This record gives sequence, C-alpha cells and structure tokens, in this order.
Amino acid sequence: MAKPGLLLIYPYMEYMGGLITDRFDLLKLWEESDPDGAIAERGAGVVAILTTGNEPIGPSLIDRLPNLKVIVAVGAGYGGIDVPAARKRGIIVTNAGDTHSGDVADHAIGLILGLVQKLWFNDTYVRSGEWVEKGYPEHRRSMSAERFGILGLGRIGRAIGDRLVPFKGEIAWWGPNPKDAPWPRLSSPLELAKWSTVLIVAGRGDAGQVVTKEVVDAVGGDGYIVNVARGAVIDEEAIIAALCEGRLAGAGLDVFATEPTPPQRWADVPNVILSPHMAGQTIEAIARLHEAAATHLKTALDGGAVLNEILA
Amino acid sequence: MAKPGLLLIYPYMEYMGGLITDRFDLLKLWEESDPDGAIAERGAGVVAILTTGNEPIGPSLIDRLPNLKVIVAVGAGYGGIDVPAARKRGIIVTNAGDTHSGDVADHAIGLILGLVQKLWFNDTYVRSGEWVEKGYPEHRRSMSAERFGILGLGRIGRAIGDRLVPFKGEIAWWGPNPKDAPWPRLSSPLELAKWSTVLIVAGRGDAGQVVTKEVVDAVGGDGYIVNVARGAVIDEEAIIAALCEGRLAGAGLDVFATEPTPPQRWADVPNVILSPHMAGQTIEAIARLHEAAATHLKTALDGGAVLNEILA
Repeated sequence: MAKPGLLLIYPYMEYMGGLITDRFDLLKLWEESDPDGAIAERGAGVVAILTTGNEPIGPSLIDRLPNLKVIVAVGAGYGGIDVPAARKRGIIVTNAGDTHSGDVADHAIGLILGLVQKLWFNDTYVRSGEWVEKGYPEHRRSMSAERFGILGLGRIGRAIGDRLVPFKGEIAWWGPNPKDAPWPRLSSPLELAKWSTVLIVAGRGDAGQVVTKEVVDAVGGDGYIVNVARGAVIDEEAIIAALCEGRLAGAGLDVFATEPTPPQRWADVPNVILSPHMAGQTIEAIARLHEAAATHLKTALDGGAVLNEILA
Repeated sequence: MAKPGLLLIYPYMEYMGGLITDRFDLLKLWEESDPDGAIAERGAGVVAILTTGNEPIGPSLIDRLPNLKVIVAVGAGYGGIDVPAARKRGIIVTNAGDTHSGDVADHAIGLILGLVQKLWFNDTYVRSGEWVEKGYPEHRRSMSAERFGILGLGRIGRAIGDRLVPFKGEIAWWGPNPKDAPWPRLSSPLELAKWSTVLIVAGRGDAGQVVTKEVVDAVGGDGYIVNVARGAVIDEEAIIAALCEGRLAGAGLDVFATEPTPPQRWADVPNVILSPHMAGQTIEAIARLHEAAATHLKTALDGGAVLNEILA
C-alpha cells in the first residue's frame, strides 16, 4: 500500500531526511520536468505540504490537492501561505512557533555589532597596513549612545530587545498592536525610523513594504538598518541607493527581495554586511525545527491538537 | 613664567588637545631627535606623565624626573608602569577606572558574534556567488549552546558576562581571586579553557602569559578565543599556529604582541578577526577618558583626592 503523499516545493526540505521519508511518499516539485502534470497525476495522494513559508501556496495549488490536510511551515515565517484559503478548506497550517527566535535575535545582534563596532572596517584597517602607516583610526560611536528601534515586537523582536538591554542604549519599538513591553511604542514606522540610530526589522514577512524609501531616509546618513525579517518588508532599491549615496551609514541584511540574492547586485554597495538567510539556521534550532515539523505533520494526520497552528 | 612640564611618550596623547595645553608645556618625546638629551635638559620641569599605560615607565625614566608628581594612564591598562617604584617616590599613579569597560565589553561581544555567527564566512558566501551556486551553507552552532569562559572578572570581564546572559549559553570564569559573581569560578585558566567553547581574555595586562600554548590547545579545534585585554597575556605564536593547523576554530583579537601588529603576520592565518586595539575607543568613552585624565592631572597637582589612584 502506498504511503500518503507529501509535497515538497523547495529543495531545502530534503534536509528533513528520515523524519519524513519513513512516513510519506515525497513529491519533489523541483525535480519534475512537468510540475503541473505531476500534480495532476499524484495530487490526489498528497495529504501534506512542507514549505519554508516563502513559497506561494494559494488556491491555484491547493484546489488541485483534494485530500490536503496540513501545510507545515518549517520556520517562523508563513508569508507565502494563503492561510484564509487553506482554513476555508479545513486545512491546518502550522509554523515553527518559537523554535528559533533566539537564534534569529542572536544574528540580528551580530549584524548590529558588525556595523556599530565597525568590525569590517577595523579588520581591513589592520590587514591593509593602515594601522602601521596612519596610527589609530577614527573612533566609533558607543553602543550605549545608540537608539535602537525595533520594528515588530513579536517573539524575535522581543528577544532582540532583551539582548540589547545590557548594552545600555535606548530602545523603542513599533508594531501594529500595543503590547506589554518595557520599552516605549512609537506611533508609526516612520516615527520609529526618525528616532532610531539603528533600525532593526524583525516583524512579519507578510506585512507589506513597511521600510519604504521615506523610512530609509529617516534613518539617515548616521544610521544603520538591520533586517532579519523578510526581504519584502524593505525597499531594497532604496537601501542600495542610500548606501551608495552616503545617505545611510550601513546595513546588515540576512534576507533579500529575491533569494539567493545575486552577488553582482552588492558588488559596488558600500557598508553592507550580507548573510544568506541564515539567522535562524543553527544546528540546534534546525534539529528542533525538523522535529517540530515532523511532529506537526504526524499529529495533523493522526489526529490530536497541533501545536503552533496558525489561525489567521 | 613657564608652565609645568607634561611628558608625553606616545603620539596618541596629542588627542587630549586643549584639555592639557592650557595648563602644561608639552615634552613630546617622539618628536625629539635626542630623547635622552631632551629629558636631561627639561626633565626637572616635568611634573606629570600621560601614558597609554603600555609604554615602559620605570626607574630608568622617573629617576631623571625629580619633580614628577603624577603618572596618568589614559585608559584602563597600566601594565607598562612600575607602580611600586613610582609609589616609593610618592608619585601618584591613576588610570581611567571604569570609564570604558562597557565599550570594551561591547567590542568583545562583537568579536564573539563575528566568530560564532560566522559573519565573515556568510558575507563572503553571498558575495562569491556560492549561495546562488550551492544553496545554503552549513549551519552554525547556536549561541545558546556555547560555553563562555571569561578569563579575568574585573570590570570588563563582568560587563562581558552581563552582556552574554541574554544569549543563554553557559558562563564560567577564572581570576586569581574569588569574587561575588553569578557564575562559577573554575580552578585555573587551563580548566576554564578545557570547559569553554569560547574563551574570552579580559584580565589585567600585567598578569604575564596566562593563555599559553597548553591553554590554546585546550580550547581546541571547535573553540574560539577572543582577546580584548593585552597582547602579552596570550601566546600569539601558539594562536597563529593553532589557527593555521585547524586546532583552533577562530580568534578575535583587538590586542597584539606588538602594536601596531604587522599585517603580513596575519596574511595567511585563517579565521581570525583583527581590530586595531579599538575596543575602548568610542567617541563617548574617549571624551570621558580625556576629561578624567585632565581632571586627574589637575587634581594631583592642585591637591585633593585623586579618583582611580592605583595603589599596587
């Protein structure tokens, strides 16, 4: 008897390995020369989808999967999933919950310190011989003098704030809803950007373009922007232009408008630290993510309460 | 009437600018073609020395300065000063006290995250096109899985520990004296190194070579070493050999055996982040350091209690 079908859209999901192959027949869409034909032929057997959360999953796909019961996002993001359309069909949607918020926050702090402590500039200064030839470089600003603006105070944003506290700068945030937090909520993304010397983007990936050109300009020539949310949340062209024209002091980007981002896009852009969407990708978090995703898959199919069900 | 003389040994001190020139005649030793002759001629007028704390200041110098009243180290370190010899002469020695501990700790955390988050590896991975060609890189360890060993729990070491707490790894320390601290004190530098995945050197610069080859080997091929103390505290040759031979995963160095360190020394050394002794050098801290040094100078000469006098 055939195992139930599990649809994988993106190669990354193969990392799940034995956690899924023992239970499911895999339909790897990227290996199919005719993906639509493969879905027409095998779609009726598909009971579950594993997704990074980014791939578009809406009616045009799920309407061809009549027995689909669960969509599991392996990660915190689920911006690609049309959750209302899925729920209308009675399909359960789950994400990773808080499995890796701390790791993403760690990476955000790494990018912040990379910028504020001028780690690249300093390393290059030593290696180029400038320290020998010119003496000490100019001083940097102190972390304690920075104003950290956190855009989006979900689990990740909150974990970023908690890590920033001992550095003794000021902290504020904006999010669409008031929350119980030890830091003030400003009135809009633009007001937060005006106030911030370091703007940290940590909100939901499906919130639209919150960091517009106007917001980038408000951070300004002495300011830094760090993005560990999703590329779609910021106007990447505006960031690139501002960096090239010195209207933004630096940026630390883990996520991009298109991923993988083409390297030539960044070749002539100064003061930007790039990272291949790795913020949450620790050995420990990935083990927890895979375990959680496999558990969600099996629970959804076997019956029982599913942790981290997305309800809207 | 001539102003009292202030001996400057290292050019960096010129940054003090108006804070000292209004009160003192400066003897800039590095500008003198015959430094010994200049001291013989003007030494009797010298009432104070400003030093980074690194320059050797002992009997061979101070015995030629009969009216010397105060030696001011502009910074936390004072390893170059022979404090007992100075005190025997009744000369006051001061340092910066806690003026920039937080900034040094910030820099240590930046170097730690630069290593653990693989910031350089990731940036290069994107820029080289490997993300496009090969997909995601290998995962890193989580900060929450690290064991942070702090060598030296003075003001800087304590500030490093405080900043590490929200990252949720384990913390331990070693120092020559027991202290009231929320983290366990291990029995020796070697025991701390064996336990640590990240060894952070934050102790006094005059403690001798605490990080010996044996300590480096104990940190091991999966471990990192960060040094924000002084170059003399570690066996730099052992660090270089271990990095080159893969027996140490990485190092973040703000201080060196000789400074400025020659760039060719590091050209073929992998996985090392270099920084030109800039840990404490923030705009805000330097302003406080200079203000404090000038205040110490004037108080020592005008009479009154001097803050941050070094008594041993």
